[in-house]
Amino acid sequence: GLALGLWRRQVALAAAREDEEEKELRQRFMAPPVSGLRELRRRRRELRSRMELLIMETQAEVCRALTALDPGASFAVDSWERKEGGGGISCVLQDGDVFEKAGVNVSVVSGLLSEEAARQMRSRGKSLKAKDGKLPFCAMGVSSVIHPKNPHVPTMHFNYRYFEIEEADGTKQWWFGGGTDLTPTYLNEEDAVHFHKTLKEACDKHDPKLYPKYKKWCDDYFYIKHRGERRGIGGIFFDDMDSPSKEEVFQFVKSCAKAVVPCYIPIVKKHCHDSFTPEEKLWQQLRRGRYVEFNLVYDRGTKFGLLTPGSRIESILMSLPLTARWEYMHTPLESSKEAEILEVLRNPKDWAH
Amino acid sequence: GLALGLWRRQVALAAAREDEEEKELRQRFMAPPVSGLRELRRRRRELRSRMELLIMETQAEVCRALTALDPGASFAVDSWERKEGGGGISCVLQDGDVFEKAGVNVSVVSGLLSEEAARQMRSRGKSLKAKDGKLPFCAMGVSSVIHPKNPHVPTMHFNYRYFEIEEADGTKQWWFGGGTDLTPTYLNEEDAVHFHKTLKEACDKHDPKLYPKYKKWCDDYFYIKHRGERRGIGGIFFDDMDSPSKEEVFQFVKSCAKAVVPCYIPIVKKHCHDSFTPEEKLWQQLRRGRYVEFNLVYDRGTKFGLLTPGSRIESILMSLPLTARWEYMHTPLESSKEAEILEVLRNPKDWAH
Repeated sequence: GLALGLWRRQVALAAAREDEEEKELRQRFMAPPVSGLRELRRRRRELRSRMELLIMETQAEVCRALTALDPGASFAVDSWERKEGGGGISCVLQDGDVFEKAGVNVSVVSGLLSEEAARQMRSRGKSLKAKDGKLPFCAMGVSSVIHPKNPHVPTMHFNYRYFEIEEADGTKQWWFGGGTDLTPTYLNEEDAVHFHKTLKEACDKHDPKLYPKYKKWCDDYFYIKHRGERRGIGGIFFDDMDSPSKEEVFQFVKSCAKAVVPCYIPIVKKHCHDSFTPEEKLWQQLRRGRYVEFNLVYDRGTKFGLLTPGSRIESILMSLPLTARWEYMHTPLESSKEAEILEVLRNPKDWAH
Repeated sequence: GLALGLWRRQVALAAAREDEEEKELRQRFMAPPVSGLRELRRRRRELRSRMELLIMETQAEVCRALTALDPGASFAVDSWERKEGGGGISCVLQDGDVFEKAGVNVSVVSGLLSEEAARQMRSRGKSLKAKDGKLPFCAMGVSSVIHPKNPHVPTMHFNYRYFEIEEADGTKQWWFGGGTDLTPTYLNEEDAVHFHKTLKEACDKHDPKLYPKYKKWCDDYFYIKHRGERRGIGGIFFDDMDSPSKEEVFQFVKSCAKAVVPCYIPIVKKHCHDSFTPEEKLWQQLRRGRYVEFNLVYDRGTKFGLLTPGSRIESILMSLPLTARWEYMHTPLESSKEAEILEVLRNPKDWAH
C-alpha cells in the first residue's frame, strides 16, 4: 500500500515535471525539436545537440520579434518529417500589416549521401572517401527571408547551418556555413551602416579578419550575373568554415545568430510607418522580381534543394516574395532614388569602418 | 544632255522603287530585317533568307492580331545589335486592356562558337569538328510569350528557330526547332481541343507521325520537376529536326508558324470580356509564379541566354509575366476549378483525337 502510494506519487511528480518541460518548451520554441527534447538533453554536450538548440532558439527569437511588430498577424507553424530521415519546422507569416511574407525555417536532416552529392555540398568540393559509395551525414540549419510591405523597410535574409559527414574510416568531417544580408528597395545609409556595424561587432569578437572576408564573400555570392548587379547591399556570408576548432566556430556562429534581431529589427521599427507612394511600391515589386531571379537562377541552397529528392519544396520556396513584377526595359531616371540604390548594387560600398 | 537626262530619270526611278520597298517593308514588318532587305532579296533562294523573312512575317502577323484585340495598346519596337554579330527586333506590349504583357522577339545572330557551346546548342549533343576550336554559326528565330489580363484567357508561348554550324571541312550542319504551347489558368476543354486540333492539322499536312511525337515532347519538356506538374496543357515542341530535307522541314516549320494566330486568337476573342472574381485573378497570379519557376529553373533557351555573353537580357526575360505571386502552402479545394486544372497539369490528356 505504502510502496504503491510512493510509486504513484513519483509517477505523478515525473508527469508534472514533463508538463513543466512541455510548458517551457512551448514558451521557448515554436514547436518540439526534431530530435526530441529528451534526446537533446541526453546528448547535451554534443555539438549537434547544441547547434539544434541554437537554431530552435534563433527561430523562436526572430518569430517573436516579428510578431511584436505585426500584432495582427501570426505565424503558421508546420512540423514536417522527411521520409529519408529527420524533418523540420517551418514558420510562415503571410500578408500581415507590416510583413508581406516572413518565413523562418528549421531543418534537421540525416541519412546517406552519394559521393557526388557530398562533394556538391561543400563549396570547395573536397573529396570524401565513402564505404560502399554512401556517406552517413547530418545537416541542420535555420534559414529565413523577411519581405516587409513598406518599400522603406528592407528585405532581410539569414541562414546558419552545420554539416557532418562520416567517412569510410570513421573520421567525421564537419563544417559551418551561414550569413545575414539586407536587400533594401531604397538606400538609407544610416540603416546600411547600422546593419553592417552590428554584424562586424559580432564577427570582431572572434577575429577581426572575419568581417572583411565574409563581407566580400557576401558581395560576391549574391551577384545576379546577367544583370551585373547584386541582390542587395550585402552583409556577411561564409561556407566550409572548419577552423580554428569546432567549439570556436560554433561560438562565432552563435554570435552571428544572436546578431540577427539587433541588426534588423531596429530598421523595421524605424520605417514600418513611413509613408510611401505607388511609384515606390512599384519599384519594390520590380526589386522583388530581381530577388526571384537570384534565388531561382543562382542560389546554391535553392538549387540544391530543388534537385534533392525528398526535400520539402514549400519550405525551400518560402524565400520567394508574395508578389513580384517584371517590366520590359525599366530604367530609373538619372540621379533618382532608384538610380541611387542601383549604383550601390553595381558597386558595393564599405559600410562599417 | 540626253544621256544625262536618261540617267537622272533612271536614278529617280530607282529611288522611287526604293521608297516603294520602304513603304511595303513598313507595312509588312515591325522594323527593317536584321540582314537588310536588299541582302535578303539578293540571297532570296537561300534558306537562311527565307527563314528570316518567315520569322519577320510571323512577328508582324502576331503583333497585328494582338493589337487588333487591344486597340488602346501598342507595341514598343526595339531594334538592337549584337556586338559579336547580328541583332534582333523586340516588340513588347505592356499593361494593355486585354494583355498584361506580350512580347514577340526576332533574333538573327551569327559568329563563332566554341566546340563546347556548339554541343550545348543541340539537345542531342552531336559532336562537331572545329577548325582552331571555333565554329562559324548562324542562329535565328522568333519567340513570343503572351500573358493576358483576364484569367479566363490563357497564356501562350511559341518559338521557331533555325541553326547552321559550319564544320572544319566546310560541311554545314543545320536543324530547326520550335513549338507552340498553351498555359491556361482554368481549364476550358473546348479551347484545349481547338488549340491542339489546329496544331495537329498543321503537322498532319506534313506527316501524321509528327503531332503525336511533338505533343509528347512538349508535355515532357515543360515539366516543373519540383512541383510534379507541367507549366501548361502543352501543344507541340521539337528540337534538332534535320530530316527528311531542309526544304521539307522548312515547310513544316512554316505551317506551324502560320498556325499560331488561328490556334490562339479565337480563344482570346472568346474570353477577353469574360467576367472574373478576385479569387480567379489570385489563382492566375499563383500560376504566373509557376511560369516564372519553369522559365528560370528549367527552360533551356532562358538558361542558355543568361549564360551567353553578349545576349540581350531584356529580350530573354521578356517572357516573364508582368506580375506573379507565391503563397506558402496554397492548396486548392477538392473538386474546385483550381484542382481541375492541376489534375490536367499532373496528368496530361490527349486533346486532339
